[in-house]
Amino acid sequence: MGAVKSIGVIGGGAWGTALALTAARAGTTVRLWARDPATVSEVRTKQQNTKYLPGITFDEDLNATSSLKEVADADAILLVTPAQSTRAILSALKETGNVRGPVVLCAKGIEQTTGKLLSQVMKEELPGIEPGVLSGPSFADDVAKGLPTAVTVAAHTAKTALSLCEALQSPCFRPYASIDVLGTQIGGALKNVLAIACGAVAGRKLGASAQAALTARGFAELNRLGSAMGAQGETLTGLSGLGDLVLTCSSTQSRNFSFGMRLGEGFMASELIAAGGKLAEGAYSAQVAVKLAQKHEIEVPICDTVARMVSEDMTIDEALNTLMARPLKSETDFF
Amino acid sequence: MGAVKSIGVIGGGAWGTALALTAARAGTTVRLWARDPATVSEVRTKQQNTKYLPGITFDEDLNATSSLKEVADADAILLVTPAQSTRAILSALKETGNVRGPVVLCAKGIEQTTGKLLSQVMKEELPGIEPGVLSGPSFADDVAKGLPTAVTVAAHTAKTALSLCEALQSPCFRPYASIDVLGTQIGGALKNVLAIACGAVAGRKLGASAQAALTARGFAELNRLGSAMGAQGETLTGLSGLGDLVLTCSSTQSRNFSFGMRLGEGFMASELIAAGGKLAEGAYSAQVAVKLAQKHEIEVPICDTVARMVSEDMTIDEALNTLMARPLKSETDFF
Repeated sequence: MGAVKSIGVIGGGAWGTALALTAARAGTTVRLWARDPATVSEVRTKQQNTKYLPGITFDEDLNATSSLKEVADADAILLVTPAQSTRAILSALKETGNVRGPVVLCAKGIEQTTGKLLSQVMKEELPGIEPGVLSGPSFADDVAKGLPTAVTVAAHTAKTALSLCEALQSPCFRPYASIDVLGTQIGGALKNVLAIACGAVAGRKLGASAQAALTARGFAELNRLGSAMGAQGETLTGLSGLGDLVLTCSSTQSRNFSFGMRLGEGFMASELIAAGGKLAEGAYSAQVAVKLAQKHEIEVPICDTVARMVSEDMTIDEALNTLMARPLKSETDFF
Repeated sequence: MGAVKSIGVIGGGAWGTALALTAARAGTTVRLWARDPATVSEVRTKQQNTKYLPGITFDEDLNATSSLKEVADADAILLVTPAQSTRAILSALKETGNVRGPVVLCAKGIEQTTGKLLSQVMKEELPGIEPGVLSGPSFADDVAKGLPTAVTVAAHTAKTALSLCEALQSPCFRPYASIDVLGTQIGGALKNVLAIACGAVAGRKLGASAQAALTARGFAELNRLGSAMGAQGETLTGLSGLGDLVLTCSSTQSRNFSFGMRLGEGFMASELIAAGGKLAEGAYSAQVAVKLAQKHEIEVPICDTVARMVSEDMTIDEALNTLMARPLKSETDFF
């Protein structure tokens, strides 16, 4: 493909709006699609999205629309709707008949009903269209405010990946190109499981050393499972893997971390659900990770423990005993 | 070597005392050496080390001494004195004529006058004695309080590494055995440079996304340089590498992070020094890292920038421009 001069952003939430701003700052023509007409109108007339980015006035004018057909007609599309809506929106996109450029998946997660990565879902729903992935450590708020952020942008060819990077790059936003489409999705898909575990350690007040060890041992699981699934090592240690894991496991803002904290404080998962709480994304991903690990014959004790806390009401202290009482192992495989 | 039934711990600071407690909890006979007779007496009679571990009363009786000759006579020695004193204390240890077991290096850092790793220093000062390394994400306070902690313990043979692990393992302390003596030192030697960079980003208030990206890109430098120096990949992504980096870069407690914060707030390194501040360890390590990287023909832009902030008074905004304005690169080497 040639240069990307126009981008359609699908999703008027915090991240979609922030990415639309990013493209505008890069000098690319942007159109933002939002389902909610009130959001469309506010973005167009007030340069704000107060529901999702309160207190921020955009430093660039954004063109917004609620016509999917209109936004699909661009050199590239950024898909920034929730992971579990990906299949439906891809199908609707296909209906428009207007998609021609690559579709860059910007949501993180695994399709819960099928256990599939979003690029696999796209292959089924939009065959023939080039998939891309944008992922990395990035709070929408930081990006919207123009604070420096770096992410990985992957496509199947270096040419497409670089064109996408050029259409998004500005002094405050630094995309790194990659051709590892599968690998770039792994970190975002698994980090929420590990965020639950880190939250549980924090909720149980086990200290910063334990949390750092858990992050490193959790990365080892992500690394093993990701490699077995075909991800490149550099991708897993890069921004979309390690970088995003570090942000998620050190931030108390995420729903997964908070869910873990309640487990660490002694609540059972079933109590939290009975009290009307929705299960955090990582609670589903844990089950998927365990199944994938079994398929590839890989040990993922932390994911396994999170899955058992969620599905069997294993207590935090049982969970810790399980993790700490495992036989003494080396970090490498020398014996 | 056979089982390690007795351990001599050299160094009555926070980390030495915490490691002595760890060995005692594992049921191993321990003797702690401290230079200061007041510390020796307080440890023996009050089960406390109020200077370095205020507010903590030991859950195990510790035997302390100020005789180096006495403490050297053990199945293994943990050396827990500051990195820059390593050569002198090893030489004094040799003088005792009592060293027989492996000497495990527990300090982190590079010898500033020579740029050597501590195991290289040991090879010169105590030839013929087996070196070991203990490293990982661990605050002495957390360990002393019995909060769960995991570290890497390396020796040249699996047998020695496992014997050392068994002599230190308890329900709250989980050592992972390794035979990568060199690699286990890399994380501890370089993390302080990256802690300065993370502190600078925090001091300049650039947000959590920027800090996570810097941690991941910093890990990429540690990974490249460590690999070129001969470290194993699993060691670098393990507890002593990634784990310790995560702890250091997310903790505001360290001197290196604080030093970086002042740089991020706009102070020049020369001002901080003129005001009577001591240079943080990472400020020296940055110069060493840059030299090592040149020798191995590797790019380490973050270490390089920290080195220039320290030695050339590069400002924080010049530093950021340098890092953000680098040509668009891929995370992998596909072009």
